[in-house]
Amino acid sequence: MNTSGSTRTAALPPEHVFDWLDDAAAQRAEEGLVRTLIPRTAVATQLDLAGNDYLGLARDKRVAGASAAAALKWGAGATGSRLVTGSTEVHAELEYELARFCGAQAALVFSSGFAANLGAVTALSGRDAAIVTDKYIHASLIEGCRLSRADVAAVAHNDPAAVEHALKTRRKERALVVTDSVFSVDGDLAPLEELSAVCRRHSAALLVDDAHGLGVLGDGGRGAVHAAGLAGAPDVVTTVTLSKSLGAQGGAVVGPRRVIKHLVDTARSFIFDTALAPASAAAALAALRALRDEPELAERVRTRATDLSTRLAEAGFSVSTPDGAVVSVRAPGPDEAVAWATRCAENGVRVGCFRPPSVPDGVSRLRLTARADLSESDVDRAVAVITDNAPPQARH
Amino acid sequence: MNTSGSTRTAALPPEHVFDWLDDAAAQRAEEGLVRTLIPRTAVATQLDLAGNDYLGLARDKRVAGASAAAALKWGAGATGSRLVTGSTEVHAELEYELARFCGAQAALVFSSGFAANLGAVTALSGRDAAIVTDKYIHASLIEGCRLSRADVAAVAHNDPAAVEHALKTRRKERALVVTDSVFSVDGDLAPLEELSAVCRRHSAALLVDDAHGLGVLGDGGRGAVHAAGLAGAPDVVTTVTLSKSLGAQGGAVVGPRRVIKHLVDTARSFIFDTALAPASAAAALAALRALRDEPELAERVRTRATDLSTRLAEAGFSVSTPDGAVVSVRAPGPDEAVAWATRCAENGVRVGCFRPPSVPDGVSRLRLTARADLSESDVDRAVAVITDNAPPQARH
Ligand SMILES: Cc1ncc(COP(=O)(O)O)c(C=O)c1O
Ligand SMILES: Cc1ncc(COP(=O)(O)O)c(C=O)c1O
Repeated sequence: MNTSGSTRTAALPPEHVFDWLDDAAAQRAEEGLVRTLIPRTAVATQLDLAGNDYLGLARDKRVAGASAAAALKWGAGATGSRLVTGSTEVHAELEYELARFCGAQAALVFSSGFAANLGAVTALSGRDAAIVTDKYIHASLIEGCRLSRADVAAVAHNDPAAVEHALKTRRKERALVVTDSVFSVDGDLAPLEELSAVCRRHSAALLVDDAHGLGVLGDGGRGAVHAAGLAGAPDVVTTVTLSKSLGAQGGAVVGPRRVIKHLVDTARSFIFDTALAPASAAAALAALRALRDEPELAERVRTRATDLSTRLAEAGFSVSTPDGAVVSVRAPGPDEAVAWATRCAENGVRVGCFRPPSVPDGVSRLRLTARADLSESDVDRAVAVITDNAPPQARH
Repeated sequence: MNTSGSTRTAALPPEHVFDWLDDAAAQRAEEGLVRTLIPRTAVATQLDLAGNDYLGLARDKRVAGASAAAALKWGAGATGSRLVTGSTEVHAELEYELARFCGAQAALVFSSGFAANLGAVTALSGRDAAIVTDKYIHASLIEGCRLSRADVAAVAHNDPAAVEHALKTRRKERALVVTDSVFSVDGDLAPLEELSAVCRRHSAALLVDDAHGLGVLGDGGRGAVHAAGLAGAPDVVTTVTLSKSLGAQGGAVVGPRRVIKHLVDTARSFIFDTALAPASAAAALAALRALRDEPELAERVRTRATDLSTRLAEAGFSVSTPDGAVVSVRAPGPDEAVAWATRCAENGVRVGCFRPPSVPDGVSRLRLTARADLSESDVDRAVAVITDNAPPQARH
């Protein structure tokens, strides 16, 4: 009944049951880790370098219009899980076109990228499997690993030799290697070709979360897996989100047909979850078609990211060299990062601010995201505001 | 490297890495557990007794119209997580009105009910806590428990004495009792008042998943927690989904303000997930307002559920007595259940078919859901079709 095993004498009054939350809150406040939700208005008042709408498609007329039309045609919600009443023709069409676009046999749409990752990791591993992950993978993949009941080894970041060692010394026959393609915090790219070679030497499957690669990397934005020559590979599974480059909401698993069938039958985050709203599925489909019509969008966002990074490095900051759309700028600490981001916002530029526990390495930073629709003068302005508002210790 | 620990001599060719999935598929086929996605058309060709659109609001003009308008105003997606760029005025408004409607201090919107459950269970438990659950709780709560690192005890269904015993013998000071209000498969109601009393005798918090209660039970559809007199209780937390009675997509946690703040800072399925699409949030808000304007919707769906259940019992089936909108009809086995549901569909009535592993007790059944907008002749037709297509062993 309590930690010492003795009988509790008096019950807590109900209003004290959650008192422990106040202690936890005080602790977070002391560590500078309190978060606040700041609702934004519909008309942007700031230059947005914080969102993940990499191609600027969320507000594109084709995309928002498809979303609105689908809500009117299908209703606001899917009304049930995918296996009951939630699968519509829009979901099927999106799955078909997404698979084709990525060069895979099949795709399966989930209600979020988070849910897609939970489903893919758990359904492709299990008690009889070993999972080897990069230690910087996205939280949703980590949750999938925790749910998997597999032996899980998290190894050094972007280190195929470490992956190989873990595969060699695993105790389970089956193995799954899990990585982000573009890592969400620093924006660096995983060595997918080497990882695939390592997997193949050790009979392991490879699961790549291409959330930040789709729409940004590869031929016409086909993603990092496509760029690595692994599209359609029989031993590679890709997860994507519909909420970043595609400007909508939702996620998907893309891969061999038998993997997709397996997920339909076994992935709990698929089976026990209401289907993605038809409006979001239709928006993602319209965005995919827009990207097919304008393949140059992918290159444009990469160019803008490189511009941002180069200019900030010239200004003396510790900046990542972007492989995709994400540019990370080191801050001296969590409080400084928050203050820096706040000052940028006050001066009209919205930047992301990542700090523990949202960063894998404990380093607080500004996280900037490029968009295909940024102009050169947007970049000028962003660099000026970030520089003018930097804490002194941020420059070397 | 393999189960015997010896070194593997030759790597599997890549095209054989997923061969184990075929074995698993064959096994499922043998057990009659293969699932197929059947996309539906926009114009319903069947009477729908399978979805969870209990109030018929998904296609309501106010709701679908609000969804469409929000997509055009805000864009198709939220563009980022709630803590970065994903919180809009629509999310804030929905949270405010949902909390008020449910009689609680505050609410927090997640991208799905599944994600809300993951977030609530994990953030309110942890290594230092004991969780006691009903053994029939929803899969998303079970996943939350698995992720929680708490001591988890799953006790007999709807058995407050079993909960009390588990609380008494727990080894951790803090405790969280977790239950569905209306259980999703059989539609029966948890004894929330007794559970709360048990919790209070043992200083435990109570988490109620009111996914199937909101819009159906309580004063004007305020839900089962409200009906049990626990709205606004300082030791009770409620999760809801926006995807059933509210006809949209998404989920929320509703409860004391400090709980909501704690979730903002710590719930990984909140922090690391793109915000709900503004269109879905706006739809849920419009549905909530429609329900406030027409509180009789809640009673209407309950009446229809009782009609269905009474009539099917008279016809000789083993039917649950519905506490909410869900009516469950026993089938002799999984194959018979599938065949029965298929014949109903062929005859124009869509019913749910639940079988392992989607049922907690291993019993396959038809799952019917009432809707507020069913007519009496709809009920007549449904009963006739279900009866005419029943396997002989289904009647007693
Ligand atoms: C790498 C990565 N994977 C998965 C996700 C989850 O996708 P979603 O936000 O669509 O749930 C995100 C971001 O949220 C991400 O950055
Ligand atoms: C009891 C219960 N809780 C939670 C959920 C998950 O909610 P959502 O489908 O909105 O993710 C569902 C249904 O899907 C449910 O039946």
